[in-house]
Amino acid sequence: MVQAKVRLFVDHPLTQGQTVPLDKDQSNYLFAVMRLQIGAFVALFNGVDGEYQAEVTIANKRGGALICHAQSKPLQLPPDLWLIFAPIKKVRTDFIVEKAAEMGAAKIVPVSTNFTNSERIRQDRLQAHALEAAEQCGGTYVPEVTDLQKLDRLLAEWDETRQIMFCDEALVGAAEVLGAVQGDKWAILIGPEGGFSESERQKLHALPYAHPVSLGPRILRADTAAVAAMTVWQQHLGDWS
Amino acid sequence: MVQAKVRLFVDHPLTQGQTVPLDKDQSNYLFAVMRLQIGAFVALFNGVDGEYQAEVTIANKRGGALICHAQSKPLQLPPDLWLIFAPIKKVRTDFIVEKAAEMGAAKIVPVSTNFTNSERIRQDRLQAHALEAAEQCGGTYVPEVTDLQKLDRLLAEWDETRQIMFCDEALVGAAEVLGAVQGDKWAILIGPEGGFSESERQKLHALPYAHPVSLGPRILRADTAAVAAMTVWQQHLGDWS
Repeated sequence: MVQAKVRLFVDHPLTQGQTVPLDKDQSNYLFAVMRLQIGAFVALFNGVDGEYQAEVTIANKRGGALICHAQSKPLQLPPDLWLIFAPIKKVRTDFIVEKAAEMGAAKIVPVSTNFTNSERIRQDRLQAHALEAAEQCGGTYVPEVTDLQKLDRLLAEWDETRQIMFCDEALVGAAEVLGAVQGDKWAILIGPEGGFSESERQKLHALPYAHPVSLGPRILRADTAAVAAMTVWQQHLGDWS
Repeated sequence: MVQAKVRLFVDHPLTQGQTVPLDKDQSNYLFAVMRLQIGAFVALFNGVDGEYQAEVTIANKRGGALICHAQSKPLQLPPDLWLIFAPIKKVRTDFIVEKAAEMGAAKIVPVSTNFTNSERIRQDRLQAHALEAAEQCGGTYVPEVTDLQKLDRLLAEWDETRQIMFCDEALVGAAEVLGAVQGDKWAILIGPEGGFSESERQKLHALPYAHPVSLGPRILRADTAAVAAMTVWQQHLGDWS
């Protein structure tokens, strides 16, 4: 069977022989934009059942349908890694969410800090970005993007069995320390562009489950730091080795 | 002395007591956009002499001037690392150049490969992006962005003492191999979004100075791959440890 070139997330159970109806947007994309016809194959995933090769049975631009053939990938869960970051300008926030999904974050948590400028996010739009990134990068899992939370409050209610890799410009901790930490549950915390406030920094340093890690001698923008930090983590503790 | 908040690249020698004239764009930025006045401080760098704190002496929007006080940073050269990549859509190409400058590339080389869609770049615009990234990230060095070159030709004329870290989706080489390679001169080669052609792949695998490295089990977009690859390299061979 030829591998489908188009990948699509659907909010529908997937199993061999299953018929999957498409909504208007999905139908428009497949049949008007991509111009697929009856008999064409599309790779479907739903974040739960892995990936299936599905054949177009109704090519209607306002409401098509497909039927699932064989599973082409099992569900591949990412490591239990959260990415916590302070939203910045719109385009760069979109990029951070996209990159987190590509790099294998299980959950994406926007936070407001003392020095965060942007106080609002569109959770639905960011979730759609994570979904699109999963479609593009061949993932079978879509990380959840949470609503904006206050960092103080997030830390006050923290599950202490979840380790934090804490990236702060002022720090010089080598990434090698990560290998010595026990624990399967992690979160990466990226500082806001204005840096953490002194009280935030003190609080973070006092947490026994927070591990400072340096991202080199240059100042990185938040979106660069997110990718770099996830690379460091995936290399030392994740599924890259 | 208060550290200046504005950083500016100038194409002019810098030394204590030196007067630095500004062109129209720079003057407009400092005096119309940032509204600096006589006596305000700006951090200047020129890619050669390090960074100087300079005081505004003429605040004219069409042609101001500053005088250099003390040097605030010596010149910090990045490791001898090139980033070679195939240009993609405009915004993502801009991001790759910006990220390469932030992450400490010494030279940025756009190449066309067999499967590259975008055949043209604006070298001057990309060079301006690298410069702006250096201004923002506190760098004292601006990597050169070369004109678009053909990958075949670049490899045919290659200096064989420069090692290549070769990132290819189809590969599974662990980054640990890098530590065993002798050589101070390196280039990272990021595959185009359509992948390398079979003949390109064979040619690369036959080169004794090309070292395949995996960037994990997910497919990364070219801009994500560029940051991830530079992180891997900086951690193993660069100035991050």
